[in-house]
Formats: sequence, structure tokens, C-alpha cells
Amino acid sequence: MDVDFKKWIRNIPDFPKPGVIFKDITPLLQNKKALHIAINRMVEPFIDQGIDYVCGIESRGFIFATAIAFRLNAGMIPLRKMGKLPWRTKTVEYDLEYGSDSLQIHEDALTPGSRVLMVDDLLATGGTMKAACELVESLGGEIVCCVFLVELSFLGGRKKLEKYPLLSLVQYEREEE
Amino acid sequence: MDVDFKKWIRNIPDFPKPGVIFKDITPLLQNKKALHIAINRMVEPFIDQGIDYVCGIESRGFIFATAIAFRLNAGMIPLRKMGKLPWRTKTVEYDLEYGSDSLQIHEDALTPGSRVLMVDDLLATGGTMKAACELVESLGGEIVCCVFLVELSFLGGRKKLEKYPLLSLVQYEREEE
Repeated sequence: MDVDFKKWIRNIPDFPKPGVIFKDITPLLQNKKALHIAINRMVEPFIDQGIDYVCGIESRGFIFATAIAFRLNAGMIPLRKMGKLPWRTKTVEYDLEYGSDSLQIHEDALTPGSRVLMVDDLLATGGTMKAACELVESLGGEIVCCVFLVELSFLGGRKKLEKYPLLSLVQYEREEE
Repeated sequence: MDVDFKKWIRNIPDFPKPGVIFKDITPLLQNKKALHIAINRMVEPFIDQGIDYVCGIESRGFIFATAIAFRLNAGMIPLRKMGKLPWRTKTVEYDLEYGSDSLQIHEDALTPGSRVLMVDDLLATGGTMKAACELVESLGGEIVCCVFLVELSFLGGRKKLEKYPLLSLVQYEREEE
């Protein structure tokens, strides 16, 4: 079945700052049929692929990661912003358009050789996901795929993640689409 | 089957500040069996209860809300901190131990009369969940139940939510337990 997810994704001009068109996925989340199909599409390629963990990137990655983990009978690992994880952590810093940001993982989040799916809602420039993958690899995890609901293809984030298989359900070729 | 979820919940003394014992649920999330059982326990009472939406409170509520929504074939509504939701919002402010905080919901998140499950990872004093329920009710939603993985019973949050049915999978009667 061909599903046009774009009809449940809303363009918000000038959010979070002037000149940016934000992709609002909340209409899709709220629509039980669209949400159900989207999660199934994110899960299907990985059934019987021996996925041990699904990593969700704070905070919108959490929205999908646990549902996918549940369906794949895997564990869920939260990757969080600085200072949010309470136990011993590893940290990665990465560059943003202006300034930098960082992500953390618990040191005991996974055992070396674990097969890991990386999940976020949206792929923009790819900087956050690349940093997230490096964190997981620093603990010996094997990245099976980076999974996104939405890919802003015109920003070229896929190039930054070319080391890894990548799945996105919806692609935008132009910002104003 | 009786499950001792507490063996997958870790006490972290002095986090996020001195004197507080933080309940770290990441070992439970990472354990595929524990996660699977926990989500099933959060879902089972509501099968065939006509749940339209599952509301997750940012950000750890997101970890459970979508998995529950998926299993119940419901939509998922994110309740977010100030300034994060991109479209038109309703806002509720609520008091914290020191100062105040606020939560937002999109104005079109649900239609009046919708049956809604409210989800967060942990019930402490209940202030956040009470505010979240008020937001949903301000749009005409009917709260079917407030669902938590962990309840810090010694903080008495259940009292603040006495208007609503409440489900928690794990209860702590004393802070140092």
C-alpha cells in the first residue's frame, strides 16, 4: 500500500527562527492509522534481523524508539542531552550551524557486539545522528541502520551518514515542498 | 506472573541535586524482557476501552506513550515544554518545589469527547501530571487514566490526582528503598 505521509506533516514557516520551515509531525502522531503504518514501516525491514537495542535520541527520537523496540522485542536506549542521564556516561560533542551541542549515553547501555537501530524523527544535516552513532560505536555497538520518519534531502544529511544503512519514510527534495 | 520491576531500577543518590535519590529506569528500558512486560502491563487494562489518544509528557513520557498508543491502536499526543510545539498552543503553568514550569498542547491535538490516556515515567508530587490533565480537559478530552511506570508513594502525588483513575507498575513507600 502506498501511503502519502506528507498529508499528515504540516509546514510551519519561521519556526523555530525566521526563514526556517519546520516540519510539524504532530498531525501524523495524532492520526492513529498514520502512526500505526509509520511504525510498522520503520519496523518491517528489521524483523528477524537480531536487533538487540533501539536507540532513541532525545527528545523526539523517544517518540518512535520504544514502539519500534517493543515490536522488535529489543531493549531501548535513551541518548540524552548533557546532564540528563543520572549514572556514568560517555559524551560526544558535535557542531551545529551556530555553536555546538552534546549527547550522552550510559556506559553500561549495551555490550560490545550488540546490534543497534538508531532512531530519530527527522534527518536534517545529520550532525546529531552522526554523533549518536559514534557514541554507540564507542561502546562497541554495531549500527544496523539509522531510521527516520522524515528526511530533508535538500540538506544532504545522508552524505554525512554514508557509513551506515539509512531508512527514511518521507523525503523532501525542496524546503518549501 | 509476578514481576519485580525494582531489580531493573537503580537508585542514584544526590541526583539531580544533593539529598535526592533518583530512580534510574534505564536498566529496565535496556532489558528487552522487562520493557516488554512493562509496556504490556501499561496496555492491558485499556484494551477494548476505546482509547482515542495517548498523551506523553516530555520527555520521558514519550518513551512509553507511543508504544502504548501503537498497541492500543490510538493516536499519540506530545505535551511539551514551553516553546517546543510549533503550531498554535494552549499553555498551563504549574508550581514546582522552587519556582514554576509550564506545559503546552497543540490546540488541534484532540476533539472534544476524546478518550485519553495520560502517560509519564514517574509520579512524584503529581504537579506535572495534574497540569497535563488540565490541558487535555481544556480541549474537552476525557481522562481515562493516568499511567506511570514508577510511583514515589511517599511524596503523596496520588492525592493530587484523586479525580482520576491511576495506574502505576512499581511503588516505593520510602525514598531509600
